[in-house]
Amino acid sequence: MVNHDFTDAERRAVYRAIYERRDVRAHFLPDPIPDDVLGRVLDAAHHAPSVGFMQPWDFLVIRNIDVRKAVHRNFELANQRAAAAYDGERRKIYDGLKLAGILDAPVNLCVTCDPERPKGSGLGRQTDSSVALYSTVCAVQNLWLAARAESLGVGWVSIVDLDQLKATLGIPPALTLVAYLCIGYVAEFRPQPDLEEKGWETRGTLASVTHFDRWGNRE
Amino acid sequence: MVNHDFTDAERRAVYRAIYERRDVRAHFLPDPIPDDVLGRVLDAAHHAPSVGFMQPWDFLVIRNIDVRKAVHRNFELANQRAAAAYDGERRKIYDGLKLAGILDAPVNLCVTCDPERPKGSGLGRQTDSSVALYSTVCAVQNLWLAARAESLGVGWVSIVDLDQLKATLGIPPALTLVAYLCIGYVAEFRPQPDLEEKGWETRGTLASVTHFDRWGNRE
Repeated sequence: MVNHDFTDAERRAVYRAIYERRDVRAHFLPDPIPDDVLGRVLDAAHHAPSVGFMQPWDFLVIRNIDVRKAVHRNFELANQRAAAAYDGERRKIYDGLKLAGILDAPVNLCVTCDPERPKGSGLGRQTDSSVALYSTVCAVQNLWLAARAESLGVGWVSIVDLDQLKATLGIPPALTLVAYLCIGYVAEFRPQPDLEEKGWETRGTLASVTHFDRWGNRE
Repeated sequence: MVNHDFTDAERRAVYRAIYERRDVRAHFLPDPIPDDVLGRVLDAAHHAPSVGFMQPWDFLVIRNIDVRKAVHRNFELANQRAAAAYDGERRKIYDGLKLAGILDAPVNLCVTCDPERPKGSGLGRQTDSSVALYSTVCAVQNLWLAARAESLGVGWVSIVDLDQLKATLGIPPALTLVAYLCIGYVAEFRPQPDLEEKGWETRGTLASVTHFDRWGNRE
């Protein structure tokens, strides 16, 4: 009889990964990631749940510095436009935030979704066309937690011109670019999210977003 | 000096959760989930990464049997329509699959996303309007892995009429219903995904979805 239960120590380790995972931008080290370690975190991503077992993702591992420089220019322009939405004290905080580690992290990873992949024969995706995208995001989160367990930091860069990024990387137009991640060893994992530490935003309470049996019923 | 590294045992535990996580539909037990355990997996979800620290999710915990019966009827009708897309051997396999444990699992959980939540002040979401949805999916995957560590099975039900489900649950129209999950203790965690075991689909190789530096470059 197989024992399917986790020990207390195993359970604590899973929660440790969840609570100590950070969105890393400022503390990357240039140390290369060994192939076996990178292989393990990609395999963790590849074992995410997927609707109909369609596994709609692809992983594009980017180490080439010229490619990363092109992505970094894309980010800088997009970030200048984004910064223009803020002024006063807010703008001052925004300008002090480091929002991407594209050139600092030795590995960048682009994760795409093929929403029409025949695998799975459409099972489970007739009522909500977004579920293939959602499967792909589950893969990202698996990778993020596995990376934390490997002492690798991950940062998700969402401030980019997506069409331009797809062209830079040669991604077929029919695919959706879901995530652009920076991955590397880090000088430290901060105890708090950067945006909390720098005063941009505070953590909401779990109770404020929990309902029972019907929306708005706080029991 | 804080040690940020995981021990080998801790790292193995994180991978164990990732590899032994299953999309559970057929093996739920009726045993109730203690409040503290449910609270822990919800708090794990609430500690997912979110763009701009916006935490765009809400969690609707459903135990009421009348509500679950209404959702189950919704699923049954949607699943009859979905089944009509298959014939022959494929249809025979489809009809033999159990695709939801809405009435068997003691807890259902609806996870929504508020794409306009002011938290985070829009940081990081000017270039891709989907990132709030993606943050919400990260919360689902955190919960799924924490649940596995707690010996709880989770199944994602995507075969439902979403508008009708929102109406049943009283979810405001402006929100996106991202996931409807069934959660409970299980008789067993199967070694393979159900869809693999039942011959619906096979697992692809990691190499077939990995590229280097530019799309299509297999190195």
